[in-house]
Amino acid sequence: MSNKLNCIVAQSGGPTSVINASLAGVIEAALNNNHIDKVYGAIHGINGVLRNSYIELNELFSNHDNIELLKTTPSMYLGSCRHKLPSVSQDSTEYEAIFSFFKRMNIGFFFYIGGNDSMDTVDKLNKYAISNGIKNINIIGIPKTIDNDLYGTDHSPGFGSAAKFIATSLLEVIHDTYIYDLQSVTIVEIMGRNAGWLTAAAALARTGNNTSPDLIYLPERVFSTSQFIDDINTVLRNKKNVIIAVSEGIKNKDGEYIAASSTDMDQFGHFKLSGVGNVLEHLVTTEIGCKVRSIELSVLQRSASHISSLTDVTEAFLVGNKAVEFATSGISGAMIVINRETTSPYKSTISSLPINKIANLEKVVPLEWINEAGNDISEEFIAYMAPLIKGETKIEYENGIPKYMPIDHLFNSI
Amino acid sequence: MSNKLNCIVAQSGGPTSVINASLAGVIEAALNNNHIDKVYGAIHGINGVLRNSYIELNELFSNHDNIELLKTTPSMYLGSCRHKLPSVSQDSTEYEAIFSFFKRMNIGFFFYIGGNDSMDTVDKLNKYAISNGIKNINIIGIPKTIDNDLYGTDHSPGFGSAAKFIATSLLEVIHDTYIYDLQSVTIVEIMGRNAGWLTAAAALARTGNNTSPDLIYLPERVFSTSQFIDDINTVLRNKKNVIIAVSEGIKNKDGEYIAASSTDMDQFGHFKLSGVGNVLEHLVTTEIGCKVRSIELSVLQRSASHISSLTDVTEAFLVGNKAVEFATSGISGAMIVINRETTSPYKSTISSLPINKIANLEKVVPLEWINEAGNDISEEFIAYMAPLIKGETKIEYENGIPKYMPIDHLFNSI
Repeated sequence: MSNKLNCIVAQSGGPTSVINASLAGVIEAALNNNHIDKVYGAIHGINGVLRNSYIELNELFSNHDNIELLKTTPSMYLGSCRHKLPSVSQDSTEYEAIFSFFKRMNIGFFFYIGGNDSMDTVDKLNKYAISNGIKNINIIGIPKTIDNDLYGTDHSPGFGSAAKFIATSLLEVIHDTYIYDLQSVTIVEIMGRNAGWLTAAAALARTGNNTSPDLIYLPERVFSTSQFIDDINTVLRNKKNVIIAVSEGIKNKDGEYIAASSTDMDQFGHFKLSGVGNVLEHLVTTEIGCKVRSIELSVLQRSASHISSLTDVTEAFLVGNKAVEFATSGISGAMIVINRETTSPYKSTISSLPINKIANLEKVVPLEWINEAGNDISEEFIAYMAPLIKGETKIEYENGIPKYMPIDHLFNSI
Repeated sequence: MSNKLNCIVAQSGGPTSVINASLAGVIEAALNNNHIDKVYGAIHGINGVLRNSYIELNELFSNHDNIELLKTTPSMYLGSCRHKLPSVSQDSTEYEAIFSFFKRMNIGFFFYIGGNDSMDTVDKLNKYAISNGIKNINIIGIPKTIDNDLYGTDHSPGFGSAAKFIATSLLEVIHDTYIYDLQSVTIVEIMGRNAGWLTAAAALARTGNNTSPDLIYLPERVFSTSQFIDDINTVLRNKKNVIIAVSEGIKNKDGEYIAASSTDMDQFGHFKLSGVGNVLEHLVTTEIGCKVRSIELSVLQRSASHISSLTDVTEAFLVGNKAVEFATSGISGAMIVINRETTSPYKSTISSLPINKIANLEKVVPLEWINEAGNDISEEFIAYMAPLIKGETKIEYENGIPKYMPIDHLFNSI
């Protein structure tokens, strides 16, 4: 019997354009690591471990072309889940099943690529291992989230590419908007439940003499509908077209969502949001009466790999790579983080932080990066984001559309 | 005094990703044409002519780099309008103003880049010129429309790029959808009031073993909500995720829009539509009860130049070029058309057709290109579209976003 151990990797939470680049980073490093034999991928996150549903990745990805293709394929090659582990004191059954799977499969390293909720899972599994004296498995969290709300890292892989798509789309919406010789208000609704990082990325569309988007509203500041109408009227005094970037998660002074279209909650207790653009469109129609339209950038924000940021793809791959290096050198119960060394020229390094210092915290936009009126962001904030959207990923096209890694193994389960 | 004449070009209607490529084609050809001196651009379509609002393009575009940049800049560099000329018998004032402008500015050639409504303007101006014995101005329509509903041409510039964006977005939505291990229905709402060309382009996302989008509904066929629910249930028997492409313009058997969200009409008497995705999302939630989401591709369909089709950009530029060649060789009262010579390999030629054979007709999808059940399209239709999305345009990026031609001259008018 080989003295090598096997590893298993899984993905969880919402997609990003580069979460597969992190997966590619894990696979490539694991295939080349002397401590690792088999590289397994759990299907549908931690549920794959619980249900014994996994695939072996060694053969497919010994072909380097497939590593490269996976790097630029959107969403999650291994599928996802939104499963929250119960607290151990409530029910330890799932923990026992997971660690028994690890033992049975000779797993020495578990990599979980995800956002805040996934880091909760990493934290819980790590605590369970410690309190049960399980020492032969190293558990590592690998950050991903378009929302950029993970604590302890300068930014999260996934944010830069979503920001690049948003800035590009805003630029194209600006070109689409200024052509008519009439007053208009265009409201662009952008993802971000509690953190305004993504909405702020709209500001990166300002080039040359273009000052649009003219107003930017983040969820970190209380949203007042009357101030909103005043802000628009002020802009309309000087120009005919107002372009507004607004976070889906803006709330009024009582903490209620402006668009609480549904009282459904997901498993982690988050309200499902949609429709703030429609609510504000109706408001502007009523209060101002000029031409109004709202645009929802929707899931394309997190899956438009055809315009992913090269900086983001490169870092996403690297955090996957480093996760394997750190895990096999003995680190466990940690999340990989990106440290910004310098902004101009942009330079970052990769390290890790104990997971209990990260899990269940939420990094929101610092209030000093929002202007006093609460309708724009600071130059410092723009400088923070600017390097993260830079560089274009080379995408191969086949028959006019991007060539992505096939996901046939996710197709047929009913 | 030179014996050369001046020309004026304008753009009208809704934007496309390549209408500026046609403008670039007109400008380049006009700058190099012995019959033409000044090249003017009317600002805001025919309204620019009526209001004496224009810019001279010679100097800016004598720099070839600006021609190249304009070629890949979305929307309309000269601005647009949705102005319908009254019938001459009703009111000839505007006709007199237009032709008096042409005379005053020594205009020998008028190029109008637009869709169906713009061709109505070309037709009316041509008829006015003929019936008033005005012979020294050649009037040419240059086709553009993402909707592909212009008569007389195999396809319209703008369609291929919109189709490429739609197919790419569908592919990315497919990757975004299959990751969760639960039943879901995803409804993608696509532009197209009466013609289903664009919605059909969703089918180009089918690659390899992927059969999504699973259902496609065009406005050419009557839409039945009960059949729709049956169709979804049939698909759900074999797979967990159903992805549906649906035209904004689908109607019931009484000819009423499924989503008639507003009774507002635009100047040409078209109902303003939006929200069919939301209506169907609600229906599926009520009737089936699984996870449902609707996605509106919105104005990005017509302005995402960062992923325009090289075939489309090339042809759009060429129709602009040819318009100048034809006009200066004596053709007037015509629209430039694209003729498909062969589909595989794809080869097209450019010619012109009398405008009165084109204006106010609408080319819809042939019924034989829609399957019997009315929920998918034929292989023949896919073969028709496939070459039009091929090839990628080289876009220059600056600070992580596409570099587009500045539109400062459209910014400041209030």
